[in-house]
Amino acid sequence: MENRVTDLLKIKYPVIQGGMVWCSGWKLASAVSNNGGLGLLGAGSMTPELLREHITKCRTATKFPFGVNIPLIYQEIDGIMKVVVEEGVKIVFSSAGNPKTWTKMLKDNGITVVHVISSSKFAKKAEDAGVDAVVAEGFEAGGHNGREETGTFALIPQVRKTVSIPLIAAGGIGTGAGILAAMSLGAEGVQMGTRFALSAESSANVEFKRLCTNLNEGDTLLSLKKLSPTRLIRNGLFNKLKELEDRGAGADELLELLGRGRTRIGMFEGDLENGELEIGQIASSIREIEPVETIMQKIISEYNDSLKKLKEEDEW
Amino acid sequence: MENRVTDLLKIKYPVIQGGMVWCSGWKLASAVSNNGGLGLLGAGSMTPELLREHITKCRTATKFPFGVNIPLIYQEIDGIMKVVVEEGVKIVFSSAGNPKTWTKMLKDNGITVVHVISSSKFAKKAEDAGVDAVVAEGFEAGGHNGREETGTFALIPQVRKTVSIPLIAAGGIGTGAGILAAMSLGAEGVQMGTRFALSAESSANVEFKRLCTNLNEGDTLLSLKKLSPTRLIRNGLFNKLKELEDRGAGADELLELLGRGRTRIGMFEGDLENGELEIGQIASSIREIEPVETIMQKIISEYNDSLKKLKEEDEW
Repeated sequence: MENRVTDLLKIKYPVIQGGMVWCSGWKLASAVSNNGGLGLLGAGSMTPELLREHITKCRTATKFPFGVNIPLIYQEIDGIMKVVVEEGVKIVFSSAGNPKTWTKMLKDNGITVVHVISSSKFAKKAEDAGVDAVVAEGFEAGGHNGREETGTFALIPQVRKTVSIPLIAAGGIGTGAGILAAMSLGAEGVQMGTRFALSAESSANVEFKRLCTNLNEGDTLLSLKKLSPTRLIRNGLFNKLKELEDRGAGADELLELLGRGRTRIGMFEGDLENGELEIGQIASSIREIEPVETIMQKIISEYNDSLKKLKEEDEW
Repeated sequence: MENRVTDLLKIKYPVIQGGMVWCSGWKLASAVSNNGGLGLLGAGSMTPELLREHITKCRTATKFPFGVNIPLIYQEIDGIMKVVVEEGVKIVFSSAGNPKTWTKMLKDNGITVVHVISSSKFAKKAEDAGVDAVVAEGFEAGGHNGREETGTFALIPQVRKTVSIPLIAAGGIGTGAGILAAMSLGAEGVQMGTRFALSAESSANVEFKRLCTNLNEGDTLLSLKKLSPTRLIRNGLFNKLKELEDRGAGADELLELLGRGRTRIGMFEGDLENGELEIGQIASSIREIEPVETIMQKIISEYNDSLKKLKEEDEW
C-alpha cells in the first residue's frame, strides 16, 4: 500500500487514529503507530506540560511516526504550540479554528500540517493556508462537528472536487469495508476516532467504553447547536440540555447548566449520567473493547476481503 | 450486472429512482425504467384517481418494470391501495408507516414489496413483516427522515448485519462513485431521489430545480423535529420555523404556521420563499438539470471508472 497519505505521513497503512479528548494518550497513539497506522496524541484535554510528558513517553514507546491533534480554539494554545515545536513533533493535525493562524509557523519548523474540516468551503481555506492535507469529517463523527451537518457520503466527493491536496475521510468509518467505501468516494486515507476510543489502550474510562459498545442507532445525537454542535450520547445530562433547548433556552442558560469539565467527568472519570459523553455514530457497530493490534488486523483483513469482493464485480 | 436486486425487480441496473412527492410522475418513472433502472411513481402527492392516470400513462410509456412509492401514513391510503391492486402494479415501495399493515395484502396480490427504513431495528421489523427487500435511507436524504439521524455510512453496514433480505442504500447517493461506495458497505443496489428530482423529466417546478442545482453544503438541514423530522432547504419558511423552534414553540404552533399544502406550494408551484422545499444533501454536488438518459449514462460510466480504479488497488 502506497499513496499520497502514506507518503506524506510515512506510515504503512493510510489509517489515522483521531486525536480525541480523554482517549488519546501515549499508550493509544504509540500502539496505533506500532501497528502501521498514525497515532495522534489529543492535546485538547492536556496542559502543555502533560502534553510534553506524553510526547516523551510516546517517543520511547514507538520508533514510528506519530502526531499531535490540536484544537486551535484551545485556551492554552500558545503553550501547546511551544511544546510541539520544542519537542520536535513532526506531524500536527489541527482542528476547530482558523488554519491561517498557525500553519506557517508550524511549516517553518518543518512540521507536516493536516487540518480537519467539515465542508468544502473550509477545505479550500485550509488548502489556501498551506496545509499539507485535510481530514474531511462528516456528521456521523463524535464530539465537535460542523454546522452544515453534511454526512460523510455527501461530504467526501464534494471536498475531493474542491481541493487537490491529499484527502482523509472521517465520520462513521470504523471497519475495513468503510475504508474501501471512503476510497471509492475519492479519499486517500481515513481517520477513525470512535473505533480507537473504544480500544484497550484508549485512556477513556472503562465504564464509558462499555456504555459505548452497547449503544444502538440513535443513541447519539448532534446537540448544543446554539453553542458549538457536538455529538453526544443521550444520557442524563443530554436530556437536561434537550429539555432546556426544547423550551427555547439561550446560550447563556445552556452554558450555565454545562459548567466546566463535563467531558472529563464523563469520559475520564466515568460519571455516565452527569458527564458529557462524546462518541461517533459508528459506536453502534462496535461491540467489543479490543487491543489496537487486533483492531488493526481486523480492519486490514476486512479491507482486503471487501476489495477482493469488489474486484469480482463486473463492469456495467 | 446481475444480483439479488436486479433479479427481484427485473431491471438491468440496481438503480432505483426514489418516488418523491411532486417530482415522480409517469414521465420521470418511465424514463428511468426505459434506461435500465426502476422508476417509481410517487403516490404521496397524488389522489387515487390521479395515481391511476399516471399508472396508465407509465404503462404506455415503458415496457419495462416500474413501481409505486406509497407513504403508509397517507390519509387516502385505502384508495391508493385499491388502485394499485386494480391496476395490476407489480412493485410497491412502502415508507413512513408500519410494514405489517399492508404487506400481506400486497404479497397476496402478487406484488413485490420493498419497505423504506432508517434504522436496523425497523429493517428487522420489515423483514419480519415479509417484505422482499429494504431501502436503508440515511440522514443525508431529502424530505422525511428517521429520528435516529444515522448517516448512510454508519447505517448500511448495520442494516446489512441485521437482515438477510436484499438491501438497497439511499441518502447522499447521486453518482456512480457513490453507488460503488454503497456496494462496498454491503448494499446490493441504490435508491437515488435528489439526482432524479433534478432531472428534466421530474415534474417539480423548474425554479425549484434551479435553486437546488445552486445549493451549497449546509443549505439543507433536518427540520421539524418536534413534528416529523424533514430535510428542508433553508428558505424563508425554514427560517420562520427555526425562529419558532429556537424560542421553544411546540408542535401546535409549528403546525399552525405550516398550514397545509406547503410542499405543493414550493416544489410544484415554485414559491421558493413560502413553500416547503424537500431535497437531499447531495444536491450540492448536482449543478445541472439533465435528461434521465444522460444521468443514467453518466452514473454508469462513473461507476465503471470507479470500479476500474479500485481494481488497480493492491491488497494491504
